[in-house]
Amino acid sequence: MARVYALSNRMKHAKPSFVREILKVAVRPDIISFAGGLPAPELFDVDGVRAATAETLEHNSTGALQYGPTDGVAAFKQQIVGVMARRGMADIALERILVTTGSQQGIDLIAKVMLDPGDVVLVERPAYLAAVQVFELYEAQLRGVECDADGMNTDALEAQIADLRARGERAKFIYTVATFGNPSGATLSLERRQKLLEIAAREEILLIEDDPYSELRFSGDSLPPVASFAGERESPWVVYMSTLSKFVAPGLRLGWMILPEGLVGPLTIAKQAADLHSSTFNQHVAAKYLETGRLEAALPRIREVYGRKAQAMMNALHAHFPTGTLEFNAPSGGMFLWGKMADGVDTLALVQRAVDAGVIYVPGATFFPDERRANYLRLSFATPSLEQIEEGVGRLARAVLD
Amino acid sequence: MARVYALSNRMKHAKPSFVREILKVAVRPDIISFAGGLPAPELFDVDGVRAATAETLEHNSTGALQYGPTDGVAAFKQQIVGVMARRGMADIALERILVTTGSQQGIDLIAKVMLDPGDVVLVERPAYLAAVQVFELYEAQLRGVECDADGMNTDALEAQIADLRARGERAKFIYTVATFGNPSGATLSLERRQKLLEIAAREEILLIEDDPYSELRFSGDSLPPVASFAGERESPWVVYMSTLSKFVAPGLRLGWMILPEGLVGPLTIAKQAADLHSSTFNQHVAAKYLETGRLEAALPRIREVYGRKAQAMMNALHAHFPTGTLEFNAPSGGMFLWGKMADGVDTLALVQRAVDAGVIYVPGATFFPDERRANYLRLSFATPSLEQIEEGVGRLARAVLD
Repeated sequence: MARVYALSNRMKHAKPSFVREILKVAVRPDIISFAGGLPAPELFDVDGVRAATAETLEHNSTGALQYGPTDGVAAFKQQIVGVMARRGMADIALERILVTTGSQQGIDLIAKVMLDPGDVVLVERPAYLAAVQVFELYEAQLRGVECDADGMNTDALEAQIADLRARGERAKFIYTVATFGNPSGATLSLERRQKLLEIAAREEILLIEDDPYSELRFSGDSLPPVASFAGERESPWVVYMSTLSKFVAPGLRLGWMILPEGLVGPLTIAKQAADLHSSTFNQHVAAKYLETGRLEAALPRIREVYGRKAQAMMNALHAHFPTGTLEFNAPSGGMFLWGKMADGVDTLALVQRAVDAGVIYVPGATFFPDERRANYLRLSFATPSLEQIEEGVGRLARAVLD
Repeated sequence: MARVYALSNRMKHAKPSFVREILKVAVRPDIISFAGGLPAPELFDVDGVRAATAETLEHNSTGALQYGPTDGVAAFKQQIVGVMARRGMADIALERILVTTGSQQGIDLIAKVMLDPGDVVLVERPAYLAAVQVFELYEAQLRGVECDADGMNTDALEAQIADLRARGERAKFIYTVATFGNPSGATLSLERRQKLLEIAAREEILLIEDDPYSELRFSGDSLPPVASFAGERESPWVVYMSTLSKFVAPGLRLGWMILPEGLVGPLTIAKQAADLHSSTFNQHVAAKYLETGRLEAALPRIREVYGRKAQAMMNALHAHFPTGTLEFNAPSGGMFLWGKMADGVDTLALVQRAVDAGVIYVPGATFFPDERRANYLRLSFATPSLEQIEEGVGRLARAVLD
């Protein structure tokens, strides 16, 4: 009974996420998955969450179980202020924080508030897939900006903006994962951070900085968020978003946006229509958890574990792939290695062979917003154990090398 | 620094919810609020939630804290099947259930999947405000269908459909809160339930049945959901949605949709883009809670408390309002009385006087999707205590009667 419904135009070309389709295969116990960006489950602070939950239900059960404010629970927002101060953005006003149901919702809300069909959005090339999918659902035109080991090339960005101007167009916003990019693993240099914000301000184009991974640095010095370069006064041209998913727990579905004053109203209206507010239960639990300081105690271990896993994967790749068959970045944090195979290799065509060999990855083509390239692949080292990483890379080499 | 951003067209006329603006006033401790549809906090089963949370973190912490499937956690969906069976819809296939972040998200997702700017949506007159706001954000044209004590008038619905047809238009969907309507308190009769589904099927117009309140029946016999009249085979023309918010806890932000087969794919894509999935933590906790049977034990008390509060409010209104100054329905369940004052009274203009007297309600005009009427008001009896109801109605009478 395949009914044809009169769906909205935005759904006409919508496809389910390739990554999430792959993840369905990845639950087979015989498969080692390098596909998902799932945090290492051994790092979940179960005792900490248990204590925070017990405390919340003991002292604040009504607040936790009742409806709450659309913009978020004040106690949780207060903790976000602390997290942001540690990241180099001090004294964020509570009014500028909008709590979201994961940072995915932040992406959806900014798209809803900003995009009409045909509007141009500038993204990294390669870009975070689930953001690209949101922008496509809002019928945006996507343009990729070339990236290298130092993140988005700001000269290429200026060239894109000039090219658009020559056509009488302008981008609605620039979307970037500036720190430990997904899938690239690349981190925008200090110089480019300043430059990027300058370009946004000069061109009056919103910059959306999505920052899920910055807590997961395992080597080198921290860089402050792009948004922090606005200085004393907030910039009206930057929206920052982040999430608890990668360093506390994705199951809580809690993220946040830091908005310029003029966008607080529209985003709050969009949030209210989307789900009234994010779970007050989870916000109270997260606030209690962050209050205890347990996270500060847990972070060194989180960073160390991801650092060891990244190193193990790089070692295994060096051991199993002959020189010239697979190049990859050496990330300073995050969850991903971004591999490049020889020209002419099609990593999408090789997925089935990998699955047959008992390993899975995400083919790179899916991350290109335009000008697709077939010879890349994304490998996540976050979820598997060290042993699985070694075994899985061996399987991968047997599957994809002739 | 009032920046003018180039917002999307959908935001041009968007306003914050009047109800939620009023609720900000309602937190003043001296104000008795009849405004919000907040469940009575004394009914929250804190011990039940505590036990379910402890159990979840003891036995299933990884499942609860990790990312999960977009469509929902299987154990929670299994419990929804049980809830639906009790409501008169047996053996719902798990594949047809999509877990949402409250039923508000269900409204947003169906709008996203179905509506292009200018599309027609048929709603009750008066209609659930937060649904109307969503449809307006998707730039729909709203048309109200006249209602009475038996809910949406199906003859008026057919007349609207015929009128649209005469103009070469057709509605994308019909949205209804058929049981204990918000704000009307009205419940669609058995006859009209059958008729409504017949009309939807004959005209091939989707029917969206939003059912947040049906567990809160305190008098009379239960009526099965409109969606249940599809019989043995599911109807491809009805989407059912509900939520835990009114009988477990809104703070969990958990709702669900029951979809016809052909809409499962598009809605899942839209859900994934919106927030990846609803909180796995909360889904596992809710599944454990529902498994224990504590809800079945709690429901009789929930119904009794709301019944007593409704009766108290009706008694107080009879006592404080002289005959002819305020008519209202006598609901069999839900959270609301829908009051009608004399022609010429403007309940919006009277809000400030009510606040000054220490009581608040929602002016009725805000619930009319078209053809606004000024002399109605919505009174919720759910949140205040019996004493507050008596005191608040006294204040209300002093404020709004000359």
